[in-house]
Amino acid sequence: MNILIVYAHHEPSSFTSAMKNLAIQVLSSQGHTVVMSDLYGQGFSAVAQKWDFVTTRAEHFNYMLEQKHAANLDLAFSPDILGEIEKVRAAEVIIIVTPIWWFSVPAILKGWFDRVLAMGVTWDSGKIYENGLLRGKQAMLVATAGGPSRYYHEKGRHLASPQQILHPINHGTLAFCGLNVHEPFVALGVLGLDQAGREQILKELQFRLEHLMDSPQWLNYYN
Amino acid sequence: MNILIVYAHHEPSSFTSAMKNLAIQVLSSQGHTVVMSDLYGQGFSAVAQKWDFVTTRAEHFNYMLEQKHAANLDLAFSPDILGEIEKVRAAEVIIIVTPIWWFSVPAILKGWFDRVLAMGVTWDSGKIYENGLLRGKQAMLVATAGGPSRYYHEKGRHLASPQQILHPINHGTLAFCGLNVHEPFVALGVLGLDQAGREQILKELQFRLEHLMDSPQWLNYYN
Repeated sequence: MNILIVYAHHEPSSFTSAMKNLAIQVLSSQGHTVVMSDLYGQGFSAVAQKWDFVTTRAEHFNYMLEQKHAANLDLAFSPDILGEIEKVRAAEVIIIVTPIWWFSVPAILKGWFDRVLAMGVTWDSGKIYENGLLRGKQAMLVATAGGPSRYYHEKGRHLASPQQILHPINHGTLAFCGLNVHEPFVALGVLGLDQAGREQILKELQFRLEHLMDSPQWLNYYN
Repeated sequence: MNILIVYAHHEPSSFTSAMKNLAIQVLSSQGHTVVMSDLYGQGFSAVAQKWDFVTTRAEHFNYMLEQKHAANLDLAFSPDILGEIEKVRAAEVIIIVTPIWWFSVPAILKGWFDRVLAMGVTWDSGKIYENGLLRGKQAMLVATAGGPSRYYHEKGRHLASPQQILHPINHGTLAFCGLNVHEPFVALGVLGLDQAGREQILKELQFRLEHLMDSPQWLNYYN
């Protein structure tokens, strides 16, 4: 299968990078074609701006409606966005490898959502969730977080499980576009981990990636 | 009081901009000192990078630990971050005026969280939530969202209320730093609004801002 890995960490010696490298290795060795979007490596621009479009439609600049306009003009987006859109379209599976910062993704990855998952390309009026334009493709989040795992419960310090914290991404972003979302792989407490702890997590991730096609569906934990 | 408005929209004729202008007007007319962080206007850089620090502490670049290091070196941050930190420190109330994109804030504002709310400045080891370094200050989110309000329920299309969707910001970011968080003002369905609908929302916002000091505390809707 064609697999796109979107990766959002700046440090090659980070644990997030180790997870990304493992994903490339496991998926390639299984015969998949792996394509990378290394957002820091590419110097990806995070901020939605007017010059994201070859031409703009109106004086009142509504980013979403400009996306729809550009999509209608045979994808009249700036080259960096167009390149990412082409990767998304070619992908059958999108794997996002990221640290969790402030209960969300780093700004560089949020900017990828804002700019690349454009109206008219990944969703449209009446074409969201089960009718999203990326339906038929799959997605999975592979994430690291620093805080201790006992914080990540409804009764813990964070007052929410990892699944609840990730609802804006898994449901509000990936499922919104029609992607078939897998249960995320979230490594908590990575700051305090020793070598054995890291190896154990990488082993678990390897298992999940080796069985990606039977990987469990993400459940909405609000219901 | 000293009030900092952090504003994250690119379009002066947008409804989000109208809400920001109203906030400036109402709060100033009540005798508050209003300071702005107009992120698009300032060309704020969203992406956490090595050059956010005057000097770096280690070859393995851990952004959070570099923040702590810079905080210890009498705030050895890049000038743009330092300027924002000084505004945050001087503020008694922080009001964030933003659209909701992908169940979260635009990347430019996420980058403000990532870069400005630094370890050692707004929180620290053992100094989170009720012990956060911004305790004693207040915060309130003023947000707009395009989708219809019926989607924003646990049983609606988005499978979550606005409060649940905003948990990563209200709890995981603002309350995490010790800020006393007010109930957010969220205007849903703004894309389909006519002039009367907009005026009604602005009237409600004006009431909330005029009574900011008695404004209700944010409740954690998970509990």
